Amino acid sequence: MMVVSHDTAAGKRPTAGGASGAGAVPQALARVMSYIDPRLERALQLSGDAAPRLLEAMRYALLAPGKRLRPALVLWAAEACVSPGAAGSSPTQAWDTAAGAAVAVEMIHAYSLVHDDLPAMDDDDLRRGRPTCHRAFDEATAILCGDALQALAFETLVGSLPAAVAARGLRVLAQASGPEALVGGQSDDLSAERGWLDRSGAPEGREEQVAWMERIHRRKTGALFRAALTLGGLAAGANDRQLAALDGYGRAFGLAFQIADDLLDAEGNEATTGKRVGKDAERGKLTYPTVLGLSESRRRAVALAAEAESMLSELPASADDLRHLASWIVTRDH
Amino acid sequence: MMVVSHDTAAGKRPTAGGASGAGAVPQALARVMSYIDPRLERALQLSGDAAPRLLEAMRYALLAPGKRLRPALVLWAAEACVSPGAAGSSPTQAWDTAAGAAVAVEMIHAYSLVHDDLPAMDDDDLRRGRPTCHRAFDEATAILCGDALQALAFETLVGSLPAAVAARGLRVLAQASGPEALVGGQSDDLSAERGWLDRSGAPEGREEQVAWMERIHRRKTGALFRAALTLGGLAAGANDRQLAALDGYGRAFGLAFQIADDLLDAEGNEATTGKRVGKDAERGKLTYPTVLGLSESRRRAVALAAEAESMLSELPASADDLRHLASWIVTRDH
Repeated sequence: MMVVSHDTAAGKRPTAGGASGAGAVPQALARVMSYIDPRLERALQLSGDAAPRLLEAMRYALLAPGKRLRPALVLWAAEACVSPGAAGSSPTQAWDTAAGAAVAVEMIHAYSLVHDDLPAMDDDDLRRGRPTCHRAFDEATAILCGDALQALAFETLVGSLPAAVAARGLRVLAQASGPEALVGGQSDDLSAERGWLDRSGAPEGREEQVAWMERIHRRKTGALFRAALTLGGLAAGANDRQLAALDGYGRAFGLAFQIADDLLDAEGNEATTGKRVGKDAERGKLTYPTVLGLSESRRRAVALAAEAESMLSELPASADDLRHLASWIVTRDH
Repeated sequence: MMVVSHDTAAGKRPTAGGASGAGAVPQALARVMSYIDPRLERALQLSGDAAPRLLEAMRYALLAPGKRLRPALVLWAAEACVSPGAAGSSPTQAWDTAAGAAVAVEMIHAYSLVHDDLPAMDDDDLRRGRPTCHRAFDEATAILCGDALQALAFETLVGSLPAAVAARGLRVLAQASGPEALVGGQSDDLSAERGWLDRSGAPEGREEQVAWMERIHRRKTGALFRAALTLGGLAAGANDRQLAALDGYGRAFGLAFQIADDLLDAEGNEATTGKRVGKDAERGKLTYPTVLGLSESRRRAVALAAEAESMLSELPASADDLRHLASWIVTRDH
């Protein structure tokens, strides 16, 4: 059977060891994956008007092995915002309400990876341990695959929520994907790497460099994390105070994630991370470890994770998954 | 002053000659351009978070000289759907209500041209008489420029209409831009050109070839025309019967447009069309003139234009601009 319900997946949760804290995260992410992957698959069951080669590439990109971190943020945020005891607001229902948003966010993420990997961009051959989309198919198909996933993301989101929430959520996701966020961050990042910056050029001084990196990452990766959390909250009917708490979590979490990612690139190995490591250093790119050193980078990541966790007390329901995720993200090895 | 109101532009309408029918279209399109271009410009006035190089490329692509045909379809459809005498429904107000949708549709169109021109796709150096985006900037920036314009299109659309209409309109635009329409048609078109079709391959027989071309063009160009008309209708509060009439117009108009475009490529010259001509034949691509011959292609285009016009009697207000456009599109020389 294709559809795995939240309850079924939860029922299969391994109990041995009683993992708690950050140790519980891999299992929690596995539950998200078994919930969301059939829904990603179903979102690609399109009419005969969809081009066959394009659809194959979209499936390849969207269902690639991955952590499903962004869908997890959507679903866990929704779950953390249901008012306990309110009618029609069990955790399972919270997931179901937010499922379309979770699919949409993963589509945006998958499209951005496909385009980032292109020869004209980062020129990567390997992604999540497999050939990148333009290697597995061809460059034109990879470009179109990204374009199609972006359009389908917005269509999926707007079709999954009541109109008023859909319109608000759409703006959130579009802004997070657009020239002021995801694409803008990527453009500035490339411009810095290629010496195209016509203004200040590469910044000098440690704190200036940190500020520069934060400005890139806040847009390039942070904005989509925050959008995921906001969308989960909106789907679950969160109020403004709760949305602000989720956003505060997202800000700190996003930065912690990025520092941890830089640390993995500096320290990790290719077999564990599934992508080529050390490429940042090869390119002479600014990263937290090169600017701050390894131990100061680690210290900041851990402090940010704690900051993220501290935001969660505002939320009405259990936010344990989000809490554990913040600790885990700075200790993971892939 | 940047903002040119509909009335001001209409006031400047040249009266000499009293052009009517298809002859009035260039002036009507000029009025659309003077109305919509300042709005395109304003839609790109983003926060400091937008990457400078990216924004420059977006402006280059979006404000390139062009006919603004799709915004015209949005605005004229809205104008044709206002109930005469109803409060708050003058033609000027119809344009203002639909302006965000018109901007959004032009953004989708501009993004698709930027990506279609890329080296891995059609590999064009010239577009609308100027260097293509990746020639004027670079390939990475062109990819990101298209990505950003797509996201901004959806954001602009949804921010310009009441939530219920926005949600419905968003679905229309996203479907027209996605794997079952614009991107799907482009993918199948490329696949045919490159011999990637793993099913039927290139069709044999005249009518099979015509059906194949129509299936490509219905998605690659037709779907966005139809979405433009539907969005104009939705913005103006059209009922289902009126929306069906607009869609019928759009179907016939889109096909007439494509046949005329093929004829221009076969017969036109580079100075008039602003793009390299004869490239279809160079590539051995199926076109209406190569399959049906010049005179039969012309006959079909004219018949389709008449069919499009015949749909307009359902609309409550003046649809003269749409009527004239259908005749003009099959007689234009650029």
